[in-house]
Amino acid sequence: MTDISRIEAAAFRLQGHALRTPLLGSALLNEIAGRRVWLKAECLQHTGSFKFRGGWAAVSALSPEARAQGVIAYSSGNHAQGVALAAQRHGAPCVIVMPADAPPVKIANTRDYGAEVVLYDRARDNRDAIGARIAAERGLTLIKPFDDAEVIAGQGSCGLEIAEQATELGIREADVLVCCGGGGLASGVALALESRAPGLRVRTAEPEGFDDMARSLASGRVQRNDAASGSICDAILTPAPGALTFPILSRLAGPGLVVSDAEALRAMALAWLRLKVVLEPGGAVALAAALFRPDQIAGEDVICIGSGGNVDLAVFRQALARLD
Amino acid sequence: MTDISRIEAAAFRLQGHALRTPLLGSALLNEIAGRRVWLKAECLQHTGSFKFRGGWAAVSALSPEARAQGVIAYSSGNHAQGVALAAQRHGAPCVIVMPADAPPVKIANTRDYGAEVVLYDRARDNRDAIGARIAAERGLTLIKPFDDAEVIAGQGSCGLEIAEQATELGIREADVLVCCGGGGLASGVALALESRAPGLRVRTAEPEGFDDMARSLASGRVQRNDAASGSICDAILTPAPGALTFPILSRLAGPGLVVSDAEALRAMALAWLRLKVVLEPGGAVALAAALFRPDQIAGEDVICIGSGGNVDLAVFRQALARLD
Repeated sequence: MTDISRIEAAAFRLQGHALRTPLLGSALLNEIAGRRVWLKAECLQHTGSFKFRGGWAAVSALSPEARAQGVIAYSSGNHAQGVALAAQRHGAPCVIVMPADAPPVKIANTRDYGAEVVLYDRARDNRDAIGARIAAERGLTLIKPFDDAEVIAGQGSCGLEIAEQATELGIREADVLVCCGGGGLASGVALALESRAPGLRVRTAEPEGFDDMARSLASGRVQRNDAASGSICDAILTPAPGALTFPILSRLAGPGLVVSDAEALRAMALAWLRLKVVLEPGGAVALAAALFRPDQIAGEDVICIGSGGNVDLAVFRQALARLD
Repeated sequence: MTDISRIEAAAFRLQGHALRTPLLGSALLNEIAGRRVWLKAECLQHTGSFKFRGGWAAVSALSPEARAQGVIAYSSGNHAQGVALAAQRHGAPCVIVMPADAPPVKIANTRDYGAEVVLYDRARDNRDAIGARIAAERGLTLIKPFDDAEVIAGQGSCGLEIAEQATELGIREADVLVCCGGGGLASGVALALESRAPGLRVRTAEPEGFDDMARSLASGRVQRNDAASGSICDAILTPAPGALTFPILSRLAGPGLVVSDAEALRAMALAWLRLKVVLEPGGAVALAAALFRPDQIAGEDVICIGSGGNVDLAVFRQALARLD
């Protein structure tokens, strides 16, 4: 189970390895939102997303023996890169199981971070069976993307930083909007804020059609998404809240927020224009909610996490086109 | 005269107002450069460039009476925005004298930061005469873009942060590449490093055809550029080194580096891809030198300042096209 002391332990192990990302603001964005907007720029984190925190926390928590055997993860995206770099820096072997039709740049990046990439055919192969076989053969430890106590603890280190940075800015009460797939980042941040900054409350942000967490929080029971794809916010399209993450968020998080893909693109464009950072669509939904759902937010300040910046050129160009 | 105590005093006044910008790195950029590359991301500073530091240092150093009268600056770019926001936050009236053909977005931004913009015709009007008349009529203090002891001190606060951040990373010896127009940032940083991190040495970076500082450093005398325009690095196209900045750099800076506009664009693209930050061409020349002039740099680490990110959409698209 993840609690504040597990988060603090993860943060301690991350010191000097993860970047303490800045909390960015812009007077010109504040005008759009009608309040002060702060972006916790996790897109600047190593590998371009917060996932490095959880990957590092999980790898560094292993026994020396388990680490020497190696780790394995299933991911076509940010979790793959986060785990791969964390494993490389620990000298741990790393296998990433990815669909063969994943974007070539993501496969290449994962390999550049030293991982062995095993490709499978989405239509024909059983990913879990392939991964389980390799893990058993080589004695690898599976690192899940969100439903893992150490991964949640690592993401929680981002919440400790938000608590410190809000205190430095004199912010005692605010909603903290978190881009949400399975809920690993949101639940880790919620636990950190509960202990360190109880006036800050996590609220999840999701794309339309993939608002499983918002519906689950509203109903008090785990709800699933109807579709598996169909939004540009690829990093956060998970089928349902996690078994570990949902109970935490059900207890600590406020009502979920939902934005359209078009709003995510517009938020990416404004982050480029006003904050000089690169967000991917799934990393921009929290900022989009801060900018375009002002009536659903209370208070003079709103903090949102810009959770990742690994975006393809074509999609980024779509975002910039919103400024023409 | 600017010395380390004036820089420390400026840094003290900037505490809680300027962002302590992060030092970003990427394993994948290191491969290109053949050494570890660190980007001091001043593009994330308020108003999108380091100029906010100097503007704040100058406005905050004024007597209460002078501040109440107000300030004036000539600039079509980053200095205008930095001074305007600093003045606004001090409640000081601010006039910015800009050419009427400046990009509309820069005029609009400067107004959004609360400044009164006075436009002049480049072909017909005498900018200095217009500014001098307004300053005399209203009792405004002129804040020059680089040849001002307080402005240099404010930019030097960036150097104090680099010294601290390098120490945290265990970097004792490295070249620090600084995008260079008139030399305000480079000279302030050089003075800060001389006191706080003497193993770090400033080297200027400039665009081809506008390498007045490199030639001046090489010859030991102030050299001027032949042309006033003709590079996309608009932020750093000054005619010659400053009277205050050149003696500092002549004493403290290593040989200047020069890159092409095409290399600046390529560095912008790689900063987008690998570091998730937005650089303008003039803010990318130091990174370009780190990546594309490896033979002119010594040591295992190189630090470069990404000095600004206020780039027009059309130019940014040119940079992204280098990735196709």
